[in-house]
Amino acid sequence: MRVLSGIQPTGRPHWGNFFGAIRQYIDLQEENDGFYFIADLHALTTVRDPARLRGYVIDAALDLLALGLDPAKATMFVQSHVPEVSELNWILLSGAPMGLLERCHAYKEKKAKGLVADAGLFTYPVLMSADILAYDSQIVPVGEDQVQHIEVCRDLAGRFNHSFGETFVLPKAKTLENGAKVPGTDGQKMSKSYDNTLPLFCDDKLDTVKKISKQIMRITTDSRAMEDAKDPEGDHLYDLYRLFASDAEVEAMAAMYRRGGFGYGEVKKAIAEASEAYFGPAREKRADLEKNLDYVHEALRAGAERARTVAAEVLSRAQTACGLR
Amino acid sequence: MRVLSGIQPTGRPHWGNFFGAIRQYIDLQEENDGFYFIADLHALTTVRDPARLRGYVIDAALDLLALGLDPAKATMFVQSHVPEVSELNWILLSGAPMGLLERCHAYKEKKAKGLVADAGLFTYPVLMSADILAYDSQIVPVGEDQVQHIEVCRDLAGRFNHSFGETFVLPKAKTLENGAKVPGTDGQKMSKSYDNTLPLFCDDKLDTVKKISKQIMRITTDSRAMEDAKDPEGDHLYDLYRLFASDAEVEAMAAMYRRGGFGYGEVKKAIAEASEAYFGPAREKRADLEKNLDYVHEALRAGAERARTVAAEVLSRAQTACGLR
Repeated sequence: MRVLSGIQPTGRPHWGNFFGAIRQYIDLQEENDGFYFIADLHALTTVRDPARLRGYVIDAALDLLALGLDPAKATMFVQSHVPEVSELNWILLSGAPMGLLERCHAYKEKKAKGLVADAGLFTYPVLMSADILAYDSQIVPVGEDQVQHIEVCRDLAGRFNHSFGETFVLPKAKTLENGAKVPGTDGQKMSKSYDNTLPLFCDDKLDTVKKISKQIMRITTDSRAMEDAKDPEGDHLYDLYRLFASDAEVEAMAAMYRRGGFGYGEVKKAIAEASEAYFGPAREKRADLEKNLDYVHEALRAGAERARTVAAEVLSRAQTACGLR
Repeated sequence: MRVLSGIQPTGRPHWGNFFGAIRQYIDLQEENDGFYFIADLHALTTVRDPARLRGYVIDAALDLLALGLDPAKATMFVQSHVPEVSELNWILLSGAPMGLLERCHAYKEKKAKGLVADAGLFTYPVLMSADILAYDSQIVPVGEDQVQHIEVCRDLAGRFNHSFGETFVLPKAKTLENGAKVPGTDGQKMSKSYDNTLPLFCDDKLDTVKKISKQIMRITTDSRAMEDAKDPEGDHLYDLYRLFASDAEVEAMAAMYRRGGFGYGEVKKAIAEASEAYFGPAREKRADLEKNLDYVHEALRAGAERARTVAAEVLSRAQTACGLR
């Protein structure tokens, strides 16, 4: 199956991003023909600083490669390196009903807040459709909030096929599992907007372990007495530990909770150690890749070449169908 | 000066199109670096029939060449043959305020009539801006109704330059002279929407003269007596004759009007003859070109190549400025 994932290059990923999305879509490279693009054209609607945008794009590539994306198995590329997507964008725009876009939530919410919206945000679902359709994508793994946009894509593709004959493959959304709860440092869901995130990588690799340990040690806890027996279920430290530990380790931790007579500091230390064991190799790999940016650029170049081959064929099909060729 | 004109490939041009626009912008090729594109991407918002669109595009090229556009002096190409324009379109969309587009009259009028608008119509001024900016156009000859869109283009270019540094050349509108009145067969302004047009070319070249003569003979006239003296000023037959005749011929016709004692049939015959003398060579040339479509395609190919060289440089400038490269 052709699987497509778009990665917003807008800053450092955190544990929530990783378990909620990145790990899941990278895993799909094993059994599928995975296309992974770094969405710099989408980022342009929010990142209006050229140096930052350039940095974010290369960071996103480093993150993906460090976390296991394998350019021998999957196709990784930068969105704007495939001009065919911009061409498809207009072809789809020309037949996209305003009502369809007005109902999309990202725009609706911004408008409801009385904020000034740009046409980029408004037509975002059309560019996303162009991304998906350009590669004959069959499966698009997305979070719950993006399911609506896959419906828009299917609608636009269906309209085009109806007007001009079978041209586009209609994709299916694959909703990412929200199963693994990833609490933030305040116990709420980990999210940039709550400012409660734990990062995968820091600017200075050498300091990463120390910095992240410090942040883990500062995680909010309740004030129950050390000696009290505690229910592990629903405890956010226990939930964090579970992300990294083996079944046997998790079982041992649960038993310790139920027994009582331990300090939260011990659990935090266990989280720090387990997360370091889990992410350590990726951090090493990322540091190595940073010293070998030529390899990263070459991977992106080869990926774009492969992506363009597919996109050029789809674009040509669409152009012929609607009379542009 | 770099002059850019876009030609909508949506059917056969009529006398009003010719005197009100085509002749004026083709004339500009003499003293300027003229870029003339056939706007198939724009046409896609209204022409949803692939065979018709393909036919309209080649018809537009035939019309332009027959009417004097010289590929040795000017650059003629098809809009969709320059992918850089679609790429610029997104870059501009990403920073185009919704309010700016909501105020544009084509969309506003359609919405006011309660009609369903597509995002293509809504974002049309952005694609038009991309067309203009892609070639560092300095002058854009337009009808009164398009002046607003040049303002939108200047606004978008100015915003981009302000955010990312000097990148785009701000174009100036050159309003086409509406001086030459071109009445239609009912005496009103000649316009497709009044169904009162006289064509430059017909499908069958051999029949064109006969067909157009017939249409001219059917032009509405008033019922004043033949012998009455008449004021030529404001008479639509006189206005039509003036489009083609020499100063001396026009003077003679005016004298005949003032004298009276003539039939409108004589004036119509004079219009038919004068217009045939005026358009005849273009009709011949168009018929020859139709037999030599390879030449036309080659002219379009060479034009697109030249246009792409310019557009690629402008796009690269814009991409670097905003951080996509």
